[in-house]
Amino acid sequence: MNTALSALGRRTASPSISWLMKTALSRPKLISLAAGFTDNATLPVALSRKLLTSLLSSPKTGQPALQYGTTAGADNLRRLTATHLQKLDGGHDRAHSPERVIITGGSQQLLYMTLEALCDEGDLVLVEDPTYFVFLSILQSRGIQARGVKLERDGLDLVHLEKILTQLKESGQLHRMKALYLVTYFQNPTGATTSLAKKAGALKLLKKFEAAAGHPLYLLEDAAYRELRFDNSADVPTALTLPGARDRVIYTGTYSKPYAPGARLGFGLLPEPLFTTVQRIKGNHDFGTANLLQQLLARALATGQYDQHVTKVRKNYARKARVMKAALAEHFPASVEIWESGGGLYFWARLPQGIATGVKSKVFQMALKNDVLYVPGALCYAEDGARTKPDNEMRLSFGSASEANIRKGIARLGKVLKKFVR
Amino acid sequence: MNTALSALGRRTASPSISWLMKTALSRPKLISLAAGFTDNATLPVALSRKLLTSLLSSPKTGQPALQYGTTAGADNLRRLTATHLQKLDGGHDRAHSPERVIITGGSQQLLYMTLEALCDEGDLVLVEDPTYFVFLSILQSRGIQARGVKLERDGLDLVHLEKILTQLKESGQLHRMKALYLVTYFQNPTGATTSLAKKAGALKLLKKFEAAAGHPLYLLEDAAYRELRFDNSADVPTALTLPGARDRVIYTGTYSKPYAPGARLGFGLLPEPLFTTVQRIKGNHDFGTANLLQQLLARALATGQYDQHVTKVRKNYARKARVMKAALAEHFPASVEIWESGGGLYFWARLPQGIATGVKSKVFQMALKNDVLYVPGALCYAEDGARTKPDNEMRLSFGSASEANIRKGIARLGKVLKKFVR
Repeated sequence: MNTALSALGRRTASPSISWLMKTALSRPKLISLAAGFTDNATLPVALSRKLLTSLLSSPKTGQPALQYGTTAGADNLRRLTATHLQKLDGGHDRAHSPERVIITGGSQQLLYMTLEALCDEGDLVLVEDPTYFVFLSILQSRGIQARGVKLERDGLDLVHLEKILTQLKESGQLHRMKALYLVTYFQNPTGATTSLAKKAGALKLLKKFEAAAGHPLYLLEDAAYRELRFDNSADVPTALTLPGARDRVIYTGTYSKPYAPGARLGFGLLPEPLFTTVQRIKGNHDFGTANLLQQLLARALATGQYDQHVTKVRKNYARKARVMKAALAEHFPASVEIWESGGGLYFWARLPQGIATGVKSKVFQMALKNDVLYVPGALCYAEDGARTKPDNEMRLSFGSASEANIRKGIARLGKVLKKFVR
Repeated sequence: MNTALSALGRRTASPSISWLMKTALSRPKLISLAAGFTDNATLPVALSRKLLTSLLSSPKTGQPALQYGTTAGADNLRRLTATHLQKLDGGHDRAHSPERVIITGGSQQLLYMTLEALCDEGDLVLVEDPTYFVFLSILQSRGIQARGVKLERDGLDLVHLEKILTQLKESGQLHRMKALYLVTYFQNPTGATTSLAKKAGALKLLKKFEAAAGHPLYLLEDAAYRELRFDNSADVPTALTLPGARDRVIYTGTYSKPYAPGARLGFGLLPEPLFTTVQRIKGNHDFGTANLLQQLLARALATGQYDQHVTKVRKNYARKARVMKAALAEHFPASVEIWESGGGLYFWARLPQGIATGVKSKVFQMALKNDVLYVPGALCYAEDGARTKPDNEMRLSFGSASEANIRKGIARLGKVLKKFVR
């Protein structure tokens, strides 16, 4: 007898990361520099207790928090989210209005529903090369094609983007393309931040090719790591601040990384008709994210305690990044190229050509034997026949490991690398 | 220029209920007997405060609650859920093991992901006639066909089920059928409860037609209202207790109705290969439901305070159901057939043939003018060309309205009905 599974059901692969996670759990002494978890030490335990105690101290505020809400999210949190983004964008309010905000179960859910709303099987999304691997999992599951655009230290390579768009136009495939996906701040996995000029250039190119596509080409900006900036330097404005953004930019952010993944809240700002469509899809998924979590975050934002907390979180990651940077300088061979970031959770390491880092490679296996784990770079590249996947890179996270373990883990890994790299 | 929306995006309709909800909000004096909301007065505000304060009083328990977890859900909640179901099923443990449990953002999310895993566009699901309207919304959005099976007071009409299966076999459509969806306890919208004999009969019929279908035919049991039983009479066992259940029954339940919709948690127990597939899909949706909510519910269950709370909730709804029953007896014309339930949130009223209740009907419009709202029965019927939709029914909820408003609302509605019904 056949399986009753749908094509999507049959296609959906085991997430590439789950093997790594299982491996980590099975070796208790292993130091994981793979997980993108946030740091336990900075989770807002006392703050959340205080806010929830207050929220639930009267039926007047407690009952609505425990009742059903509306599909798009609680009005106060939508308003506070819009205001928060305006502030981050230097007072800009071109496309930051509350009625464009939808609150979701992490930004992951927003990405999923956006792809449901936009893409049929066989459609095409452009991504950075490399990019966030769970986004690639969604594409794989839904039968959506991906093409990788070269990534530079300040964001994607616009010349390469234009070349791909031209190729798609010439080969008659442009009508299948729906969006360009960018992780614009302290990118997962490379740590790269996209400059505003590159966001503007990308939006312009998309606009230019729309007539040939026959439909809007959206810029999907994922700002998941935006608030994890190490210093107080000016924040790069989002694509929402650009002319035309209101109609073509889909923006998504999250409260998971800066506040708490266990209170999983994300959000999106969407142009019509996507906003209405995603809202309807959300109605079918879960008719709105848990109100209790929404009211917790609304209190944190409204009282200014969210901002105070984020300041602490940023300092903590800045310190851990410095620890990893020093350890990398001390223990890694000089021929390994390191991408350093101004925020987020990751360093990106590029080994000399020809030295593979994948799960079957000698480097990975010896690292595992020495109880240290990283994310092989190849997992972060789309299935794109137009180029071979680089296999000589690794993502190194300082998110959840302690400072002592960051030092020890990098030392172990450096020792392994020195056997393969001069 | 065309829209860039996917077929799913273009197809997904505005939920039938959203017009009703907007209407309710726009008339402040309106008494809504339409909303399926739970009663504000019984929401566990103080209990949740106590449990969360304790959970967040130490980093040891607070940090894991605010951190990422695993996709299938927290181990303790999966175990407690399995144990809870075993208890409800009289100690039965045929298919109740924790490793078959997946924790979701309400049971709605489980229904959505199950349909993703099972159904391609054009596939077919059998539903009760009438059934839960948001399930119908998912089918509509995903392009899945529905056929309605006649519903009797003790569950679906097995003779009709066999007739439909035979027709599907003879017309060569059976290979498109994937599941039979039943809301088995105090059904939304009719209040009907499916007897164990009917669950067994349905499962047997599905098994009988599997060879002709060429794949498993699943029984999808939605027990959302199960714990809202008014008295202490014995609970009907779930289909999980039947022979063969481990391979063919998908069971879903929720903590939203008995505990709190604002701490939105549901769960499913699934056979392989569905469990693995749904878990992977869940990974792409949100890689696991918010841990903070999961740990809140785990504490409520583990300390026995969940059971104590549910006892209070049940008494409250039993009292409100008695109030509505008395009001119906006093104010409704005798020719209106009333389905009374032993639990849940609803009465089902059937007007004499020919008296329409839909949103454009005179009855509905006059009810609205008199500031009372109900759910027209026709919204709860699948698009099934094999029969015309009955349009003379209404769902009346005593969930969120106060006792005074239940009396007043039914009196208003009775007055309207007496103009149309002798």
